[in-house]
Amino acid sequence: MSRQRVLSGMRPTGKLHLGNYFGALKNWEEMQRAYDCFFFVADWHALTTDYGDTTQIRENTHDMLVDWLAAGIDPARATLFVQSRIPDHAVLHLLLSMITPIPWLERCPTYKEQQQQLTGRDLSTYGFLGYPVLQSADILMYKAHKVPVGVDQLPHLELTREIARRFNHFYGEVFPEPQAIHTEVLKLPGTDGRKMSKSYDNCIYLSDSEEVVRQKVRNMMTDPQRKRRNDPGDPDVSPVFAYHQIFTTEQDVERIAADCRSAAIGCVDCKGILADNMLRYLAPIHERRAHWAADHKSIDAIIEAGTAAARTAADQTMAEVREAMKI
Amino acid sequence: MSRQRVLSGMRPTGKLHLGNYFGALKNWEEMQRAYDCFFFVADWHALTTDYGDTTQIRENTHDMLVDWLAAGIDPARATLFVQSRIPDHAVLHLLLSMITPIPWLERCPTYKEQQQQLTGRDLSTYGFLGYPVLQSADILMYKAHKVPVGVDQLPHLELTREIARRFNHFYGEVFPEPQAIHTEVLKLPGTDGRKMSKSYDNCIYLSDSEEVVRQKVRNMMTDPQRKRRNDPGDPDVSPVFAYHQIFTTEQDVERIAADCRSAAIGCVDCKGILADNMLRYLAPIHERRAHWAADHKSIDAIIEAGTAAARTAADQTMAEVREAMKI
Repeated sequence: MSRQRVLSGMRPTGKLHLGNYFGALKNWEEMQRAYDCFFFVADWHALTTDYGDTTQIRENTHDMLVDWLAAGIDPARATLFVQSRIPDHAVLHLLLSMITPIPWLERCPTYKEQQQQLTGRDLSTYGFLGYPVLQSADILMYKAHKVPVGVDQLPHLELTREIARRFNHFYGEVFPEPQAIHTEVLKLPGTDGRKMSKSYDNCIYLSDSEEVVRQKVRNMMTDPQRKRRNDPGDPDVSPVFAYHQIFTTEQDVERIAADCRSAAIGCVDCKGILADNMLRYLAPIHERRAHWAADHKSIDAIIEAGTAAARTAADQTMAEVREAMKI
Repeated sequence: MSRQRVLSGMRPTGKLHLGNYFGALKNWEEMQRAYDCFFFVADWHALTTDYGDTTQIRENTHDMLVDWLAAGIDPARATLFVQSRIPDHAVLHLLLSMITPIPWLERCPTYKEQQQQLTGRDLSTYGFLGYPVLQSADILMYKAHKVPVGVDQLPHLELTREIARRFNHFYGEVFPEPQAIHTEVLKLPGTDGRKMSKSYDNCIYLSDSEEVVRQKVRNMMTDPQRKRRNDPGDPDVSPVFAYHQIFTTEQDVERIAADCRSAAIGCVDCKGILADNMLRYLAPIHERRAHWAADHKSIDAIIEAGTAAARTAADQTMAEVREAMKI
């Protein structure tokens, strides 16, 4: 029995941080064992919001791929490719655009939301309105059975299903309707307690050296009410503790929480334990990263091979699409 | 000095009629002598309004090509190709979509006009809104210097120029701004005096046999006030007279007009003269058509060669686009 296919993509934002790792990469790494996975760099999607400055896209694509491999994404298990290298994604996007009613796009909650959030740039563009159509093309191109989605992306997957139904209605059964995989996502705050985000400068990157990780952990925010060493602390408001819950054994987490509340342990020691545990956890990632970061050629070859494999799958789908549409 | 490049396309509506010939093909035939012409079958454009039934597109494409060749379009002079065979048109459309503000599209006069005119189908689709973007991609792909446009298409060419400017502004000078060629267009009414249109069943087709042409001319509408042979007629309200002005010598036209007004000539004779003149005019077209209609293989080969040539030009432009956008 052949394995079910999963498709997921990521915009080329450059070096990835622990938020990206626990939010997506860790799940990808697990999914590639159970599914036939297609993971792609969504560089055309990056243009929907960042059309004004595209100078970083190539470098960001490379850096991101290094981090994928560092995170254990395995080109022998999963197909890794770059969206813009497969023109048929644009063709399918164009064909699907013909049958997609504009109100379906305007009612996507992310449409108005992002327009309000991403100030300082004009998002009233045709491409921005259509990015769920491009997403649908990405998914349907590989006839993915499953797509890992967060809650905020569910309306987009629903839209993809609607577009698939409409296509099948007009031209005959070609596309299966993809289902959501609801993956457990660990939310890791940034070092300052806010959401981990490049723009907040509060990230720990997969590419950070041991020294940098230690330094960032040392500077992490803790319970702001605990001013002196002897003050009791509240672990529940400390980002350090949120990290311990991921990187430290359950037993130790309990002990540290109790010691924090009784002031038996100070923040410096608590952070020292965290840095040790985190670095132990990250060791295989760092090791793989050191290997791949030095090997530009292999990264290029992996993309080349993945893109060729994806193109073969895309060709197959497009042949069916052309046959169904008689075009 | 190399010749200026012209681009023009036509939706695959199937067999062409005299309205198409005098509205476009005759100009194409003349332009191919002075310009480096790219003429294409706009089959993706057909989907913007006719996505619901695509079953005729392939046959219509073939029939239309036969009529192009019949009209004297010469594959040795002009590059003939099919839009959907060059995926890069969809890629450039996608890239341009990212920088095209929606209000630019909504303000195109054809947008609301066609939505009102083409009733019975839902044109509030994403693809229909974006068809001027696809048109821009078609034109800019070949860096066309000139585009033959009717008055109603002028806003689209202006939009293409705006998109070219915006692209050049963001990413550097890649696209020249295409200029309009205002060609003289002979307006030929249908056999019933209304606009010649397939949906009115009032067309004379390039593929009509001599017999069918004679019959259609015989049944043409004339001055409805002229009930009997001896009534004087008014040539200015008769479509037959509009045809004479195209197919009959100036001298004869004057004589026929005078004879109509004095009832010296009857409608049957007047139409007989027209049929003779029209068939003389159409003879080389009919001759070429008989040749090409029997030769499916050559049509395929012409499209194959034209598409390959167009693809080479498109590849060159897309390499520049990718270099400029760093994608």
